[in-house]
Amino acid sequence: MKTLSDLGERKAIKLIENILTKGDNILDIGDDCAALDFEKQYLLVTTDMISQKTHIPKEMTPFQIGWFIVSINLSDIAAKGGKPLGVVLSYGLQKKTSAKYLKELTRGANTCATTFKTNIIGGDTKETSEITICGTAFGIVNKDEFIPRKGAKTDDLIAVTGSLGKAGAGYYCLKNNILNKNISKALLEPFPKLKEGQLLAQQKCATSCMDLSDGLSSSLYQLSEINDVGFEINYEKIPISSSLLKLKKKNTKLNVSDFVLHFGGDYELLLTIPPNFFPKIKNILEKNDCNLYSIGKVTKDKHVKINLGNNVEILENKGYEHFKKQLF
Amino acid sequence: MKTLSDLGERKAIKLIENILTKGDNILDIGDDCAALDFEKQYLLVTTDMISQKTHIPKEMTPFQIGWFIVSINLSDIAAKGGKPLGVVLSYGLQKKTSAKYLKELTRGANTCATTFKTNIIGGDTKETSEITICGTAFGIVNKDEFIPRKGAKTDDLIAVTGSLGKAGAGYYCLKNNILNKNISKALLEPFPKLKEGQLLAQQKCATSCMDLSDGLSSSLYQLSEINDVGFEINYEKIPISSSLLKLKKKNTKLNVSDFVLHFGGDYELLLTIPPNFFPKIKNILEKNDCNLYSIGKVTKDKHVKINLGNNVEILENKGYEHFKKQLF
Repeated sequence: MKTLSDLGERKAIKLIENILTKGDNILDIGDDCAALDFEKQYLLVTTDMISQKTHIPKEMTPFQIGWFIVSINLSDIAAKGGKPLGVVLSYGLQKKTSAKYLKELTRGANTCATTFKTNIIGGDTKETSEITICGTAFGIVNKDEFIPRKGAKTDDLIAVTGSLGKAGAGYYCLKNNILNKNISKALLEPFPKLKEGQLLAQQKCATSCMDLSDGLSSSLYQLSEINDVGFEINYEKIPISSSLLKLKKKNTKLNVSDFVLHFGGDYELLLTIPPNFFPKIKNILEKNDCNLYSIGKVTKDKHVKINLGNNVEILENKGYEHFKKQLF
Repeated sequence: MKTLSDLGERKAIKLIENILTKGDNILDIGDDCAALDFEKQYLLVTTDMISQKTHIPKEMTPFQIGWFIVSINLSDIAAKGGKPLGVVLSYGLQKKTSAKYLKELTRGANTCATTFKTNIIGGDTKETSEITICGTAFGIVNKDEFIPRKGAKTDDLIAVTGSLGKAGAGYYCLKNNILNKNISKALLEPFPKLKEGQLLAQQKCATSCMDLSDGLSSSLYQLSEINDVGFEINYEKIPISSSLLKLKKKNTKLNVSDFVLHFGGDYELLLTIPPNFFPKIKNILEKNDCNLYSIGKVTKDKHVKINLGNNVEILENKGYEHFKKQLF
C-alpha cells in the first residue's frame, strides 16, 4: 500500500486535486492562493500549517512562531499581488503549554499582522498532542491585476525581489550553534513581500509569480511544469545574501550555492516579466524602496538550466518536499 | 507558571482577544465567525482544527473525518445566516499515512462541501507527528441579515432547529460497542444547518444565534454572559433524539438528560427570537422542511435555569471545554 512518504507532497497534492469538485466561482486550484470571483475583484485565500516536530526548530521563540505563521500566509497573498484583508489562526496546543507561551505566540502573530497593515480577526484553540498552528489569510486583488502562476512566455525575464540564501544563512547558524540573532531572524521572522507584489500587480506586466518558500530550484521546476517552458538562470546574476557570504569567509566548508539554489524559506517573489517592461518596473520598485533582479530568462527548451559562466548545466531539482525529506 | 490546563479554553480565548489589535473593518471577535466589512455584506470567516488524539475517535473513517471538518466549519457560517463561498483545508499527515487514507479524507471533505453547494477551493499538506486537520470556511451575508451572538432580549423565546442528544446517542453506541451506523453517523457526519440559518437570516428577526457544538448548557452560559441576560428552559419542551430514547429502552442506565443538556456535537442552531415573530418563522421553516422548537425564554434574572415540571433549578454548566476535559 502506497504511503505519503512514497508519494511525496506534490503527488499527494495532485491526488487531492483530482478528487475535488471545482466550483464555478473559482479561478484555479494549485496556485499560491485560491482566487474566488468577487465582482471586479478576486477574493484570495491561502492556508498553511506548521507543527513542532517538522517545522519549528527548538531555537524558535513563541513570538517568532506566531510571526512566522502569519508571515508565510501573507507571502502567498503577496505573490498574487493582493492586499490582505485579515488572518485567522487555529492553535493546536498542549495542556501543559504555558499561558506565557500563548501570550507570546499571539503577540508575534499580532505584531506581524499589524506590521503589514492587517489583523488577526479570529481563530480556534484546540488541544493537540503536538503544538500545531494553522493560519489562513485572505486578501483582495483587482481581477486585471491578479498575477497567476501560469502565464510565463518564452523570452520573458525571470526575476527575484531580493537576495537569496538569507534563510539558509540563518539555518547554518542554528545548526552550528553560531549565535547571531540578526542572521537567524531572516529564517525565523521572514518578511512577506506585500509591497513588491502590489506594485507589480498595479503595473499589470508580470506574466507569472510565486513565492520562493520552497527554494529556487524547486520553484523553477514547478513554474516550468505549469507553464510548459524552461528556464536558464545565470548564477552570477543571482543576488546572494551578504550574511551567507560573510559566514562563508569563516566557514570554508559552507556550500553557498546549495543554500542559494535549493534552500527554502527566503519568501522573496519569483516572477517572469517581458523584457521590454523590465527597466520601467525595476525603476518603480526601486523608487519605492524595493528591489528587482533579473536572474535569467524563460526558454522554449523545457529544461531548467543554470549558466555557471564557463558552462551551462541542468539545474538539479533539490528543493524541499514534505513527507520525502525534512528541513529541520 | 499557569498552563492552559489551569486556564481552560474560554479563558485562553480571552487572553488571546486581549492581545489582538482589532481592525476597523471587523465587526467583532468572539462570535462563531469573524465578520468583515464588504460593502453591503459581511465576509464571514471561521476556522476549526481537529486532531487524532483529542477529537477523532478510532471508529471514525477517513471519509467521516473529511466530512466532519468541513461540516463543523459550515455550521459556524450557518449560525450567522451566511451562504458559504468556499472552504480551505490544511492536512497535517504522517509519512506512514496511506494514499488511500488521503483519498478517502478528501472524498469525505468534498462530498460534504458539494452536498451543501460549496467547494473545497484550496489547501495545504504538511507532515505532522499526529494527524491534524484544520478547515477554514468563508461565506457571505447581507449586513442587515447577519445574526450575531449578542442581541438576545428579555422575554425573547429561545429555540433550537432540531432534536438534541443525537450526537450523544452516537457517542454512547461507540463507547459501548453497539453497532449502529445510523446512530453513530449523527455524531461523526453532522449536518450543518445552513438552510435554517439562511431562512432565519432572511426574516431578520432572530436576535441572537450560535451553533450547539459545545452542548446546550455550555452554549446557554455563553449567550448569558455575552447578552447579560438569563434563560429559563423547559425540559419537557426540548425535542429529544428518537435514537437516544430508543437506546434508553434497552440501556436503562443511560442518562438521557445528561446527553440532551450537556453533550456537544449536535450542530443544531440555538437562537433567540421575539415571541410575536415565532409562529410565523416556525411556519416558514416548516414549509421548507426545517424545524423550529421553542424550549424556553430569556429572563432578566441572569441565571440559567431549567424547569423540570415540578420544580425550577439552576442548570449546571457541564459542557465540554477544551484543555480542561476531553470528549473522547
